[in-house]
Amino acid sequence: MRQKISVREVGLRDGLQIHPTFMPTADKLAWIAAEAAAGVREIEVTSYVPPKLIPQFADAEAVTLGAIAIPGLTVAALIPNLRGAQRGIELGVHKLNFVMSVSETHNLKNVRRPPADSVTDFRAIVELVKSQPPDKRPIIVGGLSTALGCSYEGRIAVSQVVKYATELMEAGADELVVADTVGYADPRLVREVFRAVLAEVGATPVGAHFHDTRGTGLANVSAALDCGVSRFDASLAGLGGCPFAPGASGNIVMEDLCFMLDSMGLDTGVDLERLIEVRKIVAHSLPDIPMQGALAKAGLPRNYVSGARTQAA
Amino acid sequence: MRQKISVREVGLRDGLQIHPTFMPTADKLAWIAAEAAAGVREIEVTSYVPPKLIPQFADAEAVTLGAIAIPGLTVAALIPNLRGAQRGIELGVHKLNFVMSVSETHNLKNVRRPPADSVTDFRAIVELVKSQPPDKRPIIVGGLSTALGCSYEGRIAVSQVVKYATELMEAGADELVVADTVGYADPRLVREVFRAVLAEVGATPVGAHFHDTRGTGLANVSAALDCGVSRFDASLAGLGGCPFAPGASGNIVMEDLCFMLDSMGLDTGVDLERLIEVRKIVAHSLPDIPMQGALAKAGLPRNYVSGARTQAA
Repeated sequence: MRQKISVREVGLRDGLQIHPTFMPTADKLAWIAAEAAAGVREIEVTSYVPPKLIPQFADAEAVTLGAIAIPGLTVAALIPNLRGAQRGIELGVHKLNFVMSVSETHNLKNVRRPPADSVTDFRAIVELVKSQPPDKRPIIVGGLSTALGCSYEGRIAVSQVVKYATELMEAGADELVVADTVGYADPRLVREVFRAVLAEVGATPVGAHFHDTRGTGLANVSAALDCGVSRFDASLAGLGGCPFAPGASGNIVMEDLCFMLDSMGLDTGVDLERLIEVRKIVAHSLPDIPMQGALAKAGLPRNYVSGARTQAA
Repeated sequence: MRQKISVREVGLRDGLQIHPTFMPTADKLAWIAAEAAAGVREIEVTSYVPPKLIPQFADAEAVTLGAIAIPGLTVAALIPNLRGAQRGIELGVHKLNFVMSVSETHNLKNVRRPPADSVTDFRAIVELVKSQPPDKRPIIVGGLSTALGCSYEGRIAVSQVVKYATELMEAGADELVVADTVGYADPRLVREVFRAVLAEVGATPVGAHFHDTRGTGLANVSAALDCGVSRFDASLAGLGGCPFAPGASGNIVMEDLCFMLDSMGLDTGVDLERLIEVRKIVAHSLPDIPMQGALAKAGLPRNYVSGARTQAA
C-alpha cells in the first residue's frame, strides 16, 4: 500500500487572479473537468470576492456550480470574509479556504486589519459554518499566508506562525494550510515551521502551499513530507506568481509535484500523462499566460512505470 | 560556524558541450574569472576530448592555462581516457574528472566498452596520476554517470552504483561523484543511493551531480544534504541538458542552488548578487543559449541577509 498524498489544484484561483485576461467560464470548467479526470481530487475553483475587485472571478457562481457537478471532486473556494463564506454555503461548495497573513504589514495591506482581527473574523465564519445542517456544512480551512516570509517584513518569526495556527485551530478550523506566499522558504525553514506548528495543533491536518519563486518549491515539499505533511497545493504549469515580478515562477508546478511524489512511491491518484495534456486547455484559452514546468518539456523517464518503485536491489 | 558546502561550476563543460555555437575563449575566461570572483572556488573549465569530436573544446589548453592563472581557483577538467589525463597533467590542471556510466548500455554507446573496462582504464589513469611528483599531481575524481537512471535502461540497480563506486575508490580515486545524468532522480532514490554508496566508500568524499530535467534537482540536493553530502555540481543559468529534449532543463541552476544553501544557513562562500551578474557574460556571448533560473528572475527576498539565519524564535 502506497501512502496517499492529496494534491490540490489552486491555479484557477492563485494563478488566474493575477492574470489580466478573463478566462471564459467554459474554459475554466473544461480545465477543471480534465484535471479531475486526470485524478486530481480537489480543486480550488474560484474566490468569492466582489467582481469589481477581481473581474476574473465574476463567474464564481457558474464555476462553482459547474465544478460541483463533477462526481468525486472536492470543490473548494477562497473566502476573504464572512460574506464570502455565505456565498459559498449558498452555492453548496464543499470547502471554504479562509486566508489571513501572519505578517501584520501584509494583512493590513491586504485586508486592512491586523491579524488578530482576522482571527476574530474567522471565529464568526466558523460559527456560521457550524450552524449549517450537517449535509450543507462545508469543510472550513484556516490558511496562513506569508508564514515563511513576507515581501514587506522579510523573515517571519516561527512563534507567530504557531500562534495564529493555534488560534485558527482553537477557533474550529477543520484543516490548516501554511503558505510560503512569496517563495522565500528553504527546506530547513520548512522543517522548523512545520514541526513547530504540527506539535501544537494536534490532529488537525496541516497542508502546505509553496511557491517556486526562487526554485526551492519541490525541495520544500520534500522537507514537508519529512515532517509528515501529506497535503500540497500546486498549480498546473506553475500558474501564479507575483504581479511585481514579471516572468517570475509562481506556485509549484502540479505536473512536477505529481511526478516527484509518484517517483518516490507515493500515491497521488494522478495519471501523469493525462495531467500534462490538461496544459493544452490553458495554453489554448490564454496564449499569453506564462507556463512553467520541467516534466512537460522533458517527458517521463524511459520505461517509467507509475507506482512501480520496483528497482532491483 | 556555518557548515561549508562546495559548489562546483560545470556549465563550461556540461553546458557548452551540447551547444552548437563556439563560445570565444576570451568569453569563457571572462565567465570563469567573474564566477571565481563571485566566490565559486571550483570550476570544471573544459573537457580533454579530441576537438574534432567536440569543437567547443578546441581551446581546452588556452582555457585551462587562463583559469589556472586565477588565484585560489581549483581548475578541473573532464577526461574521457588516459590521453585526456596526460593532457591535463601536462597543462598542470588541478583536478581530473574521469566519468564512466553505471549503465552498461550508456557506457557502450558513449565510450564503446562495458563499465568493467572503464574501471580498468581508470586504474591506469590513477597509476599515471600517482606516478607524478607530488607538486604536479592532480586530484583524481571518479564520476559515475547515469547512477540514478539511464535514458536507455531506465532505473539502475543501487547495487550496481555501489559496486562501481567501490571499485573506483579501491582503484585510488581521491573523490567520487554520483551523477543523475538525465534527471530521473527523486529525493527518496537519492537517499537510497547515497546512503548505500557512503556506507561502502569510507572516508572518500562523494559529490552529487544533479540535473533539473524534471524539476526535482534542488529537492535531490536537499535529500543528499541529509545524507551528509557537501559537494554539489551545478551550472550557471542551468546550462546543459539533453540534445534530444530541446528546451528541457539541464544541470541544476547554480544561482538557485547557492540561494537555497545560503538560506539554509550553509556557507557556500558565494556572493549571490555577484553570481547573478555573471549571467550577463553568458547571455551576451551566446544570445541563443537557453538560460534557466528562478532567483535571477525574482531577485533575493526582501531584507535578505546572506548567512544571517537570525530569525526571531
